[in-house]
Amino acid sequence: MNLAVSVQTAPPSGTGIAPLAALVAPDLARVNALILSRTGSEVTLIPEVANHLISSGGKRLRPMLTLATAILNGHTGDAHVKLAASVEFMHTATLLHDDVVDESDLRRGRKTARIVWGNQASVLVGDFLLGQAFRMMVEAGFMDALDILSAAASVIAEGEVMQLATAKNLATDEKAYLAVTAAKTAELFAAACEVGPTIAGRGAAEKRACRTFGMALGQAFQLIDDALDYGGKAEEIGKNVGDDFREGKITLPIVIAYGRADAEERSFWHRVMEAGDIRDGDLETAISHLRRHGAIEATIVRARRFAAEAHQALSIYPDNEMRRALSEAVDFAVARDR
Amino acid sequence: MNLAVSVQTAPPSGTGIAPLAALVAPDLARVNALILSRTGSEVTLIPEVANHLISSGGKRLRPMLTLATAILNGHTGDAHVKLAASVEFMHTATLLHDDVVDESDLRRGRKTARIVWGNQASVLVGDFLLGQAFRMMVEAGFMDALDILSAAASVIAEGEVMQLATAKNLATDEKAYLAVTAAKTAELFAAACEVGPTIAGRGAAEKRACRTFGMALGQAFQLIDDALDYGGKAEEIGKNVGDDFREGKITLPIVIAYGRADAEERSFWHRVMEAGDIRDGDLETAISHLRRHGAIEATIVRARRFAAEAHQALSIYPDNEMRRALSEAVDFAVARDR
Repeated sequence: MNLAVSVQTAPPSGTGIAPLAALVAPDLARVNALILSRTGSEVTLIPEVANHLISSGGKRLRPMLTLATAILNGHTGDAHVKLAASVEFMHTATLLHDDVVDESDLRRGRKTARIVWGNQASVLVGDFLLGQAFRMMVEAGFMDALDILSAAASVIAEGEVMQLATAKNLATDEKAYLAVTAAKTAELFAAACEVGPTIAGRGAAEKRACRTFGMALGQAFQLIDDALDYGGKAEEIGKNVGDDFREGKITLPIVIAYGRADAEERSFWHRVMEAGDIRDGDLETAISHLRRHGAIEATIVRARRFAAEAHQALSIYPDNEMRRALSEAVDFAVARDR
Repeated sequence: MNLAVSVQTAPPSGTGIAPLAALVAPDLARVNALILSRTGSEVTLIPEVANHLISSGGKRLRPMLTLATAILNGHTGDAHVKLAASVEFMHTATLLHDDVVDESDLRRGRKTARIVWGNQASVLVGDFLLGQAFRMMVEAGFMDALDILSAAASVIAEGEVMQLATAKNLATDEKAYLAVTAAKTAELFAAACEVGPTIAGRGAAEKRACRTFGMALGQAFQLIDDALDYGGKAEEIGKNVGDDFREGKITLPIVIAYGRADAEERSFWHRVMEAGDIRDGDLETAISHLRRHGAIEATIVRARRFAAEAHQALSIYPDNEMRRALSEAVDFAVARDR
């Protein structure tokens, strides 16, 4: 299906992520330099593996959020740069481990590190980056930021384990599914955003607002990812369409379609998702079931509700350039087609 | 070979690890309770996997070292309990990931978690424990202890990656090998010990002494492990004799034997260690080469030199019960046969 068509019915978006990127550009350049220097090691395999992924055209959305929320809240020091780099390292470590866990071959349109260097290097370089992330947090010197990010590290891993448990289980409902995505994806967005007001010395209201903003944005982001897995093209979204399907991942489109399925369709879903017995043409059949029940559109509608929640969370801040840029980043997240 | 015979020529040991265990027993009980509560999660797979390893009869040597060095240096607060639990979680996370990286089937005489629950769960539960370790460090509230332990986390992962690189490389010499073991094994001992004087507010001399003590003890510990891999029995040491051999791990006994080998033996080592072409009877041949060149004895002698260094490091402390118990733990580490 052509996802772009569905998305044209979305609220008109701004100019995407560009305003946010422009506002944080000088700080992001420092984050990128720090990332480069902190992947350095005499053990040459480490920078090779780390930079394969880090320099593969990720959007740096999470570190941008830490920079932006710090600035939005009036932070004037340097700590946001180190914490933003920490957030990106946590994200990269998670991706390296995810690719091992999911046995993925392709990420952002390139072979995964585990395909090029093996599972062993992916696990260990992930561990190294997590260690480096914590070192930078310590250097930043804010115990309360360390508290937020270390809690996030546990929650993310917990979410990944929850996902293992729900992976082949069609009894997963929307609530259970959103609990998984809240932990495995949105928690890092939430933590990245909560760090901003925290290091700026702001109070509970600002911390709660930024955390809510990040959590809702992260949920919207993940749901659009789930929709794209059944709607984009490999060269556009940088992973194969149907990856989730082939891995037996029960994502929201499947949860919705299964809930609306007749007996014959249910038996199809049980065979492919639970028994893992996937045959030629099954992906196409799955997509036609998803279409018939409007499951992808319903997923996008759910993502838009999260987006609205993210916009709302920012309302405690005065209307200014940074707040508008963050709002536009939310619109970008739900309108993107890759 | 009967390793116990070789070891009888060691300096007479005390009563092993018992005095240390007795001195830290009340605090260690609190560490164990904390470990149990912090492996808890609504995601039931997490405590299952974590406790499989944590309750499998590990000696808790590393957390005991944190408790002991804290007490030795006059620490009177509670932080040592949380930091000791953090150290054990870091260790457990490393073991879970190591077993995946090494494709090990057996650890401490039990099936590894990856055999029971799969590589995926082992990677992710390891990540969870690392996150929990950092949360407890944050709760302990000492930024300088966080600095030491987060640096250790990076160094350990770096050491593991170095080991991947040296794994099948017979050009590895003693110095290169000891750099790997310093990073992958001894660094956590060193950090666990350095934390003690740090939270007790002691100065650079005590921190250096405790760090040196831990590093030397860790190196001795690893070298004895390497020797035991060619000398113990599976049911005694809880892993299979020859595990390192089958995994193509170049450990110190091999480095020494290869250095003393004639052309025929060298071609044997190249075939089995580098090409990984291991046939029936090769382990026995390897052990006979190791014996002929005294490679296991030489490894034990090297371990004893580290043990002497560990004893020496403690000499800045007055003679007291805790110092004596730490010294006896060193003797235990080099005299153990499992």
